Amino acid sequence: MPGTPAGDGFRMPGEFERHDGTWIVWPESGTNWRDGARPAQRAYVEVARAIATSEEVTVGVSERQWENARAALPNDVRVVELTTNWSWVRDHGPTFVVDASGRRRGVDWRFNSYGHIALPRYYSAAHDDAIARKILEYERVDRYAAPIVLEGGSIHVDGEGTLITTEECLLNPNRNGDLTRLQIEETLRAYTGTEVVIWLGRGAVDDVTSGHVDNLCCFVRPGVVLLSWTDEPSDPMREVCLDARRRLEAATDARGRSLDVRLVPLPPAQYRTPDEATGVDRTSDGSLSAVAGDHLTASYINFYIANELIAMPLLDERTDDAARAVIADAFPDRRVVGIPSREILLGGGNIHCITQQVPAAALR
Amino acid sequence: MPGTPAGDGFRMPGEFERHDGTWIVWPESGTNWRDGARPAQRAYVEVARAIATSEEVTVGVSERQWENARAALPNDVRVVELTTNWSWVRDHGPTFVVDASGRRRGVDWRFNSYGHIALPRYYSAAHDDAIARKILEYERVDRYAAPIVLEGGSIHVDGEGTLITTEECLLNPNRNGDLTRLQIEETLRAYTGTEVVIWLGRGAVDDVTSGHVDNLCCFVRPGVVLLSWTDEPSDPMREVCLDARRRLEAATDARGRSLDVRLVPLPPAQYRTPDEATGVDRTSDGSLSAVAGDHLTASYINFYIANELIAMPLLDERTDDAARAVIADAFPDRRVVGIPSREILLGGGNIHCITQQVPAAALR
Repeated sequence: MPGTPAGDGFRMPGEFERHDGTWIVWPESGTNWRDGARPAQRAYVEVARAIATSEEVTVGVSERQWENARAALPNDVRVVELTTNWSWVRDHGPTFVVDASGRRRGVDWRFNSYGHIALPRYYSAAHDDAIARKILEYERVDRYAAPIVLEGGSIHVDGEGTLITTEECLLNPNRNGDLTRLQIEETLRAYTGTEVVIWLGRGAVDDVTSGHVDNLCCFVRPGVVLLSWTDEPSDPMREVCLDARRRLEAATDARGRSLDVRLVPLPPAQYRTPDEATGVDRTSDGSLSAVAGDHLTASYINFYIANELIAMPLLDERTDDAARAVIADAFPDRRVVGIPSREILLGGGNIHCITQQVPAAALR
Repeated sequence: MPGTPAGDGFRMPGEFERHDGTWIVWPESGTNWRDGARPAQRAYVEVARAIATSEEVTVGVSERQWENARAALPNDVRVVELTTNWSWVRDHGPTFVVDASGRRRGVDWRFNSYGHIALPRYYSAAHDDAIARKILEYERVDRYAAPIVLEGGSIHVDGEGTLITTEECLLNPNRNGDLTRLQIEETLRAYTGTEVVIWLGRGAVDDVTSGHVDNLCCFVRPGVVLLSWTDEPSDPMREVCLDARRRLEAATDARGRSLDVRLVPLPPAQYRTPDEATGVDRTSDGSLSAVAGDHLTASYINFYIANELIAMPLLDERTDDAARAVIADAFPDRRVVGIPSREILLGGGNIHCITQQVPAAALR
């Protein structure tokens, strides 16, 4: 499409607004996942199974894994061919936008594999930069090609004009080094139909995404956000949390509201075990994406809001219940389904990173 | 699905009934098509372009040809990933069935590459036997696995209980050699929701499909059929036409009607030129699928009935107009769009062979 979503009257809905369905991309990469991605596949199946009780789920899978995925997934999950390297559809998938007359379109952001962090370790751009286009084809949705590098996990919106992101990611020279903060803000407004950008500083410590906001903070509904939190002074996340809280509490959203900031406990620091570092393939340059002792960026905030439930990562028995209580209180109309997600965490993200909503195009 | 379509109250609609859309599979095989299938692709594009003026068209294409197909096809044609060898979706695609309450399901017939004629020349069964399943996934349609080998081009139905096929194909030992005529009839009835099977004898001479009916005869509507015809005593098709006419005129359909048999002239015999035999790849055993002088099975009957038009193959200037006149007279509510289809003919079929309708699931 020529033009921009905002110029054409479109906006990105909040994740908490009604969905027509959810996309997931099957994990297959032996260099991103251990043991040929089979343990990760089992975790993805449980995520798909949970969400499919709430809305239609489509899983994209390469031809060579199609039969395996079809056999592993519940019958009511649709399985379509989609050639991929990465399996984080939040990031390389499209951002859907809707207008007040019931139309739906899609934004296809540029994807450079998280600022080329993984080049040349386990990255081939060709397949993954095409995923958004292909998903929009499947959905028969017209496409806007956005002129900036952006992963979906680096933004959250309230659907009423407000967007939250982090400076660490969106102002990182490895994404859009030739653009100013103002230029990036203008592009975000134009392609998400927002007016106000709330900038947090850093994202989660050691996040390979350069600080995606979806591991730190998210909207519950307009005016209400959840924020990862620790009271432990020695935790490296302490400073990130304090700074984010200050900025959120000082912010005013697009409707002039102050934000109600609710705190979700972080799990104790998580590290890759020696066992978890085995079974990951080396790439052509001999490098590895996984080493024992890696600090894993674990956050309960990385949940997915489906129509009828929250698909929440279970991360540590010491903190799962406390985190669940805050989330359940924030979403009284949805049940909270906890899913063991250690295998997804080992790949570098969690449930929010592996899902992408298709918002309902119905009239409001 | 357990059970059968007929047992569950489903029937295969006539092609002339309302469609929700049409599937096409992109030609890619260098052993089936000359010059890397690029000339065939241009012909397929024109077929897709014509049908897309009438209904939604989806083209399935392998990952390696996705960008090329996307660029070549009109914007309103949907392009999805689908790994294939053959590109005759009439034959390896599903047969859709509907019921009176507005539901749609699909029949997945066994596919053995036209009775293994092409083994080992240019055949790999794995991809093509999966195409029907995958298309049913895309359409979110439940699937019946039919227990016989059958290509969609070997049957035509009137949607009111009558099916036409040929003995040459369906009774051929290379398809279902272990089944009797009665067993095959019972299976056809069960999986298409028909009651009466009208058996023609041979199909078109030299047809590599072993005589698919869709190169010889088709329904215009219940009670009316079109039949390929020649008055030339020396034409090898003369005997086939006479026999088919006798059988059709002697038949009674499921509603007790005699058939109105209308004759469509055959083009003069068509042969592969030396130029047309170049550019076809040899396969691993060194064989070729194309030799100069091959008799090409050309038939105007191999048209496609879309909602608002007939996509008709143009085969020979000496006969195109006469054939078009009969077809236009038979379908007064549709425009007849002639499409140069020599390149499709060179691959072994024509427009009907490369299309598969998705019937509307609306209430009748």
